[in-house]
Parts: sequence; C-alpha cells; structure tokens
Amino acid sequence: MTTLSGFYHIDQIDHHEFHGYALSGSLYSGQSKLQTIQVVESPKFGKMLILDGKIQSAALDEHIYHEALVHPAMLLHPHPRRVLILGGGEGATLREVLRYRMVEEAVMVDLDDEIVSLSRKYLPEWSERAFEDPRATIVCTDAREFLDRPIGLFDVIIHDITDRVTGDFAEDYYRAIQQRLADRGMLAMQALELNLGDFAGHLGIRQEVERVFSWLRSYRAYVPSFRADWGFVLATTAEALDPVASGIVESRFGERLGPGAGLRFYGPAVHSALFTLSNELADLIGQKTA
Amino acid sequence: MTTLSGFYHIDQIDHHEFHGYALSGSLYSGQSKLQTIQVVESPKFGKMLILDGKIQSAALDEHIYHEALVHPAMLLHPHPRRVLILGGGEGATLREVLRYRMVEEAVMVDLDDEIVSLSRKYLPEWSERAFEDPRATIVCTDAREFLDRPIGLFDVIIHDITDRVTGDFAEDYYRAIQQRLADRGMLAMQALELNLGDFAGHLGIRQEVERVFSWLRSYRAYVPSFRADWGFVLATTAEALDPVASGIVESRFGERLGPGAGLRFYGPAVHSALFTLSNELADLIGQKTA
Amino acid sequence: MTTLSGFYHIDQIDHHEFHGYALSGSLYSGQSKLQTIQVVESPKFGKMLILDGKIQSAALDEHIYHEALVHPAMLLHPHPRRVLILGGGEGATLREVLRYRMVEEAVMVDLDDEIVSLSRKYLPEWSERAFEDPRATIVCTDAREFLDRPIGLFDVIIHDITDRVTGDFAEDYYRAIQQRLADRGMLAMQALELNLGDFAGHLGIRQEVERVFSWLRSYRAYVPSFRADWGFVLATTAEALDPVASGIVESRFGERLGPGAGLRFYGPAVHSALFTLSNELADLIGQKTA
Amino acid sequence: MTTLSGFYHIDQIDHHEFHGYALSGSLYSGQSKLQTIQVVESPKFGKMLILDGKIQSAALDEHIYHEALVHPAMLLHPHPRRVLILGGGEGATLREVLRYRMVEEAVMVDLDDEIVSLSRKYLPEWSERAFEDPRATIVCTDAREFLDRPIGLFDVIIHDITDRVTGDFAEDYYRAIQQRLADRGMLAMQALELNLGDFAGHLGIRQEVERVFSWLRSYRAYVPSFRADWGFVLATTAEALDPVASGIVESRFGERLGPGAGLRFYGPAVHSALFTLSNELADLIGQKTA
Repeated sequence: MTTLSGFYHIDQIDHHEFHGYALSGSLYSGQSKLQTIQVVESPKFGKMLILDGKIQSAALDEHIYHEALVHPAMLLHPHPRRVLILGGGEGATLREVLRYRMVEEAVMVDLDDEIVSLSRKYLPEWSERAFEDPRATIVCTDAREFLDRPIGLFDVIIHDITDRVTGDFAEDYYRAIQQRLADRGMLAMQALELNLGDFAGHLGIRQEVERVFSWLRSYRAYVPSFRADWGFVLATTAEALDPVASGIVESRFGERLGPGAGLRFYGPAVHSALFTLSNELADLIGQKTA
Repeated sequence: MTTLSGFYHIDQIDHHEFHGYALSGSLYSGQSKLQTIQVVESPKFGKMLILDGKIQSAALDEHIYHEALVHPAMLLHPHPRRVLILGGGEGATLREVLRYRMVEEAVMVDLDDEIVSLSRKYLPEWSERAFEDPRATIVCTDAREFLDRPIGLFDVIIHDITDRVTGDFAEDYYRAIQQRLADRGMLAMQALELNLGDFAGHLGIRQEVERVFSWLRSYRAYVPSFRADWGFVLATTAEALDPVASGIVESRFGERLGPGAGLRFYGPAVHSALFTLSNELADLIGQKTA
Repeated sequence: MTTLSGFYHIDQIDHHEFHGYALSGSLYSGQSKLQTIQVVESPKFGKMLILDGKIQSAALDEHIYHEALVHPAMLLHPHPRRVLILGGGEGATLREVLRYRMVEEAVMVDLDDEIVSLSRKYLPEWSERAFEDPRATIVCTDAREFLDRPIGLFDVIIHDITDRVTGDFAEDYYRAIQQRLADRGMLAMQALELNLGDFAGHLGIRQEVERVFSWLRSYRAYVPSFRADWGFVLATTAEALDPVASGIVESRFGERLGPGAGLRFYGPAVHSALFTLSNELADLIGQKTA
Repeated sequence: MTTLSGFYHIDQIDHHEFHGYALSGSLYSGQSKLQTIQVVESPKFGKMLILDGKIQSAALDEHIYHEALVHPAMLLHPHPRRVLILGGGEGATLREVLRYRMVEEAVMVDLDDEIVSLSRKYLPEWSERAFEDPRATIVCTDAREFLDRPIGLFDVIIHDITDRVTGDFAEDYYRAIQQRLADRGMLAMQALELNLGDFAGHLGIRQEVERVFSWLRSYRAYVPSFRADWGFVLATTAEALDPVASGIVESRFGERLGPGAGLRFYGPAVHSALFTLSNELADLIGQKTA
C-alpha cells in the first residue's frame, strides 16, 4: 500500500478546511517571546517559515507574494525615496524595495527580533543581502509605537504583518500610517484571502482602511503554498488613480527596474492581471469596477 | 475545546499534500458501472460532485471553471455554430455553450449516463435547463469511439474530461479531434493544475496536443474549491492568433452575449487576465510570451 | 497511487491526537434539540452512532462496551431486581440488563427522545427487542430531575452518559444516585479512557464518586472503535468487596445467565482480566492493588 | 479559534483508518541503508522512534510492549540461560532479558546497525545499560542468515521484528528458529494487532508458526501509542502448557525477578489478564479456550 504515513504540517484554514503538507525535515523549532517559530523543509514547497502554526512563506513562491506586495505601490508612486516596512521580518519585502535605486532609505520595523536573526541564518535566500544594504535600517519594536516617533514622512508604507488589526485600534492605526505618508504617499498591505471561498477578512480590512484613506483598490495573486488567491490593498489619500491604465506601469517598470531587475513573477502584464477582479468578486467587496 | 471532529472529504492531491473539506451532509452516494459518484454538501463550498474521490465541481464556484473553459474558445472563434463537448456530464459546460444564440447544435458525449441522470436530479443548478434545449443532443458513449462516427465537423470542441489522455493513445485521440474540427476550428481543454506548485501534468498535455495542433495557448483561473490556479489549453490548426490583443474579445462579448448574459465570472478584462502567465511560469511550460 | 482520498469521520481526541475513520455511507444525519446525531457506515467498524462528532458505539464492538458496563455490577450484586439506566439511548445497555430473568423492572432515562427513536429505526441490532420487553420503561427526561421523582429504590444503577458530570453539580448528582440505591446497591459507570495515554478524566470521576461512595473500583476493556482501553467505575456504599476473588462471579454467571446467554465478550475469566490493572496504572489513579 | 494547526506524524493504519499524532520536536531524521529512521518528540507519548513511517515505540509505554514480549516466555521456561533476540535494535528487549540473573548469555541480532547506534545516542532510556552488559552480544546481520551459523542452542528466542515473515520463506524461517531451540525452548513473538478491529495479520502469523511448533498461544496487551490491543505469540515444541494455571508464574516471578525488579507493567496478575482472550476473539483466531 502506498501510504499517507509520514510527517505533516497541518494548517487549519477555518472551521471548514484543513490542509496537510508533507515535511521532509525540520531546520529550526523554537519559541520567541512572541510566537512559535519553525523552519521546515517540504518536498513540494521547499523551506517554509511557520509562525504560530501558520505558513508565512515558502521557498517555492515567496517571490510571488513579495513581488505582488511591493511593486504595484513602488511603480504607481511618482517617486518613492523613503519607504517604511511594517513587519516583513524575513527580509524579502526589504529585498524587493531595495531593487529601486531611487530608494534612499528603507526602514523595516518588526516586533520580533528573533524572526529577523533566524531568517538571516536559515532563510538567507529571502533577504539576499538586503539587511547589509547601507540604505536599510532595521528596528525591532511595535509598529504602532514606532509611528509615534519623530521619524519623518514616507513615500510608501508597506504593511506586511500577518495579524489583522481590528476594532477601535484599527482606525487609530491606519490614521497614524496616513499621517506618516508624504504628499502622494501610498500604503500597500497584505490583506488575507481574496476569492469566492473567503473574502470576509479582506472586506473587513477594506472597510477599516476606507475610514482613513479616500482611495483604495484590492488586488490578488495566487500563492501556491497558501493554496489561495491572496489579497492585497493599495491605498492613498492623494487623488484617485487607475492602477492599470495609461501604460504608466509599463514605462516606469523599464525605467526603474530595467531588464536585469531579477523579478521572476511581476511585470507590467502581470500587474494588470493582478488588479483584474471578476465583477462578482468586486461587487462582493464593494469595489467599483472601471 | 473547539474541535476538528466531524465529517470530511479528504482529497489527496499528490504524495505531498492533502486537503480536508468539512461536510454537512450527503445527498447521494453510489457506484456507477464506471466510478464512485457522490453528491455532498459542504458548509463552505455548497453542493459538491465527487467522482472516485476527486472533487469535480462545487456550487460556489463551478461557474468559474465552466465559464473559463467555454468562453475563450467561443469568442476567439469567428462564428461557432456546431459545438461538441466531450465529457461534461453535469451539464454546466453545455449551459455555457448554449448561451450563444449563434450555436445551432451542441452535442455532449459522456461515457457515464448515471452522471447525467444524477446531475439532473441532484445538481439542477449546474445545467439549468440546458438538457431540455432543442439544440442539445446527449450521447452516452466513449468519446474516442464517438469521434469515429459519421458526425460531421465542429467549430469548437470542448474537452471536459477529468482523466488525462496519455501514452500512444494521446496522439491518436488528439488527431481524431483535429479531424473533426471544421476550418478555423478550436479545441478548448481543461488541463490540470497550472501554477508553480504543480504544472507537470499540464506540461504533459501541452506536449501531446502540440504534436497535432500547430498553435496552442495555456491559460488559468483560480477555482476556490480546487484550491488551485487551474489550467486550460486552447488549440487550433488555423493560423496563430493573439488571444488578448485587438479588442476582438471585447466587441464579440457584447455582440454575442450581451449585457444580460448571466455570466458571473468571465468578461473581456478577466479574459486578458486569464491568459496572462508570469514569464517564469510561461518559461516552465515552454510557452513563448508575447 | 493508492490514495487516502475519500470520506472520513475525524475524531479529535484531544489537543495531541486525532483519528480518521473512512466512511462508506451515511444513513442519517440530523440535529435533535440537544445534539447532532449521525448514523454512518464504516467499512471497518460497521454502522456507527456519532453524537456531536464523538463516536458512541459501532456495530463491530458495541457489545464489548455494553457487556463490560453491565455484567460486573449485575453479577457482583447479590440479587438485582430493579435496575435504573441513566442514558443508554441506543438500548444496548437495556438489552444486557434484560438478559437476567431475575430483573423485574428496568427503567431507562435518556434526555433525548430522538436518540431513542432513531436507534430503534437505524440501529435495531443494538436494542434487539429490549424496548418491547414488558419489564422495560423508557422515560425521556433529565437524569438528575428524574432522581428527585418518587421512583423508589434500585438495586443497580448504570450511568451510561457520555459527558462527565463535573463541578459542584457532581457531588449533588452522585449523592442523588446513592440515595436511590437500595441496601447493597451498586453503581456502574462508563468512565472515559483509562490507560497510560489518558487517565485524567477517569481520575476526576473517581474523585467525585469517592466523596459519596465508600467503595469503588476501576476496570477497563479495549474497545476497538474507540481505539482505547476504556474505563469503568463500580461503586457501592455497602461493605467492600473483592471483585475478582472467591469464584462468586463464575458461579453466578452460570446460574443467572446460563450457557445460551448470548454473550460474546464477557465471561468469568474476562471479568477477572477487566479488573486487573497494572500496578503502575492503579497507582496513578490512586487505586490500592489487592 | 483553538486550532488543529501544527506538526503531526500521520500513521495510516490501513485503508480505513489513520491517526495523527501532534509533534513538538524532531531529534533525528535520516535514512539508513535499510529504512527511514526518525526520532521525534510527542507531547502526549514522549520520544518516539519511527521507522519507515510506522511508530516502533514511545517513551510513555515502550515498557508495556517490551515487558509483555519478554516476561511470559522467560517465566514459563524452566530455566532460561541462553537467549536470542531477533530484531529489537532499541535495546529494550535486551534490557528486559538481562533482568534475569540466571541468563548467562543474550545475543541480539539486528540487521540495521544504525538503529542500534541511534538508539544508544537518542534513546538511552530504552536500553538503559544493557548494551554494556558483559553477557550481551550484538550482531548486525540478517536474522535468517544468523540462524545458519554455528551458534548453538537457545532456551528462549524472541522475535522482535516489525515486518511479518510471509510466504514460503515463513516455514523455513520458523523451522530454523525451532532447530535453534534447546529442549523445552520457547519462542516469543510480537504478532501485530489482536482485537476485533484487526486480527488478520495475527492469524496469518499463527498459521505459519503452527506448521512448525506443536503448541502455541496468543496473548495481547494494550499499548497506548499504538492505540491497539497488540498481539504476541508464544510457541514451543515441548509438551503443551497452561500459561495461566498452577501459580508457577507467581512463584517464579518472585524467585527470578524479586520485588525490586523494576517492572512497571508486568506481574503475575497482569500475566493472567494478558492471556485471557474473549471466547469470541479466541474463536476467530482458532485458539481453543481452556
């Protein structure tokens, strides 16, 4: 009998679904002061970082997630020089931000310094050499607390934190972000599953962001190790923009990243596809279609 | 303790992954002469048809799969009048084909007559009234055997069969299809998972189709209940075409289906997104990017 | 690939273990006013009754559980004439009690009348014809409430209820039972898992029973569909007795049940084995070994 | 939501059942020339040795398995001086054998020398200091091949190998064992699950042993981490004996092992319980009841 016997990471998605991922090895397993941290090896998805039992990213496809999170905001902004990353301890979000030569300063704020040091040790492919880049500053503190410091304004703020900010705290949090954005500044966020099977959490994030930002747009990318079309939110208080029109992404992509940019997933055509939701899904999350 | 206890359909994807779907009820469970057939109720995905332990389609998102399978071929073809469906026993592929008034005849060939009768009884939402449409003919026989009958030529042939045709039989099968296509005829196929996590089966199908058809193109759609970006292949022996250029889909969509067409997923913008693969994935399956 | 795909009942034992049972069919699935009730078919264990996601009994081995629950008390009691069953809605506990001709009256009290009627319909092998026996009375009400009625005294009371009685209520409950026991009356209880892997719940029951009863003894039987050595507690306020000594069970077994009694699991030798705990396990639950 | 998410060893029992064991860590994972070897940590069962995906033994209850395997033969034999262990690489079977001062020589033959060295390193509680005992000899070779060497005769041979010997090879194998047994010699074997849920493999072993040995007896013990009443077979070509009668085990237990023997599970009363099968189960495996 070919058998199912073996080691698995089981990910309970919700009350109605669970997924089992076969594992071939464990590189690290420990408890930081904040969470359980595990680095494991999957025959299908490669190395995986798992926090509190939830898959954060996998070697096979972390670039899909991180490219989708970073590049739309970086290309839709007219001239991003200062970038703030909230979360993103693996360093891959930072890696994508630093691809832009026009970025002069990138500040990454992650609450858990162990994630950062473990990622440098076990997941060096995630950050490449981003942590050593002289333009990068790593701060280990609470994101909300950091926003109250005298940190100046940022052109792009990227929210790369697993947990959804909810309740009364959400409005205060998004307002603090908005106040740290320079003129024409943009917020890009990871925003949970976005597909017919589950969009409730994404919708909640949109509603919270909408109280503070005058313009927002949802987009999504399929991340194989999440087994989901994953959602993102782009928001600004500047004038509304059309993220797929006018060829602006295409021309900036060439100027800012060039042909040897090293991107594997994202490009101008993919950009348009990411922002194309079906009418049905757009209606369900209250997004007007063009 | 919130508990996992309960009923599940477990779908073993491959040696490295399995998914568990909570079930709230069972409507039908039986064995036809060909396969195990089950109709169950999932709190998350609604009614699901399961054949030999594999999810075929779910109420929540069968329209995503069926609209993606049918409409690209029907709109890229200059004038589809006769359509042949191989497989598709639930009747939803037929439903999508019959949305086109210009279709004069649609023949559906499914080996398992029990699938057809059970779908009419338990899954009437799948076929709506397609089985009663005077333009429809249902034949219960083997697809390959049917292709040898004196059936004339078809403008579009849709392959909606779960199992992949492999080995020596594949070339014979695709050649038989090709010989049943009228001038400028198109083949549309469901073609397994298509994403970084799994594209081996899709690649195999492409290679088999390529031996017979001079032009083919892969596209994909995220089907939540499959938990996958699912692949499709479009092929023709007519001249090469660019499936996303020139606004032809947009104009034909309005002419052929109209605003009250009842589509929930597919539309001209979604069409372009379906055909946009990342460069990386296109390379892996040997598809030249535009 | 031999595959795991298919339907399962998953039973989450605790935070550290779950079991999956393949299912071949579903006979009934519904919601009573008290609980979810399911009757399913397992290829390995036969028909199974599942309440709120927990397996109650299976055709393959329900007789092991029910014979172990009933016969020790019935044979250690000098002359059981009136028997009270708390719970036991399937009717199999009643079936075992009524094997004794000396029993003049058996009262079964189950809160959920749907369990009783569904068991009669779907699980007739459990009760055989016990519900029709003129000596049997079925009352659908709360066990604790019933104990306050003018019901007289019983020689044996059998507690066949899934949920453990806990907290302040436990002492009141066991005292009410004790007050309904006639002179030399015995209480027999199902008492959760009893083995090195899990004995915490059993120990809790023992401690609660011990506050009211001067003598108690734990015993256990392996029930395959529970995948556990399952525990039982026997208690009395009469003088202490040695449940395995003196051949009394052997002689009474012949006298009271006879060779054609129809028992499949229980007998005098098995009786002794049931009451034999390893010293280690006896120590862990605070039971003095002979 | 309290969640199931986390790491598990999944043990597929057969086509109809699987068990998931939560894991808290991995101590070793590798591939010997013969099998996959894993040493993991379970919150419920402690350290576990897993070979080719099957649980071999767990810290919580390996003593139940090993005491049950070794002591019945060692006490029913009139005077065991030379003992041969086939398999048993963890060293716990050897540990139990060496408890007897009357044992002058114990030879352990395990095919996989890595199991032995890994067990010494990661599972020292299994062997205690048995490997260092001057009476012990460890040979890493094939059991069948070893039996053809000029090794003399043994009083007790213990077969502690996971895989069942089947087919034509079985008769040859058991005959080779029988020819290595001294006068009144006994064979003790682990013999798969033995309970109503699964006894087919056990029955097969009995039938194979019966071709060579004139007397055999099945017994069983519940091993929590196996979630099963596990079977053993005792066989001899000497005159038939009654393994539970006559108080011989009780008197020899005191003489040979003494009060400070360190046994946690086995004792004279447990011995009798181990050999007590229900009539039903005895009939199913063709064992005459006393």
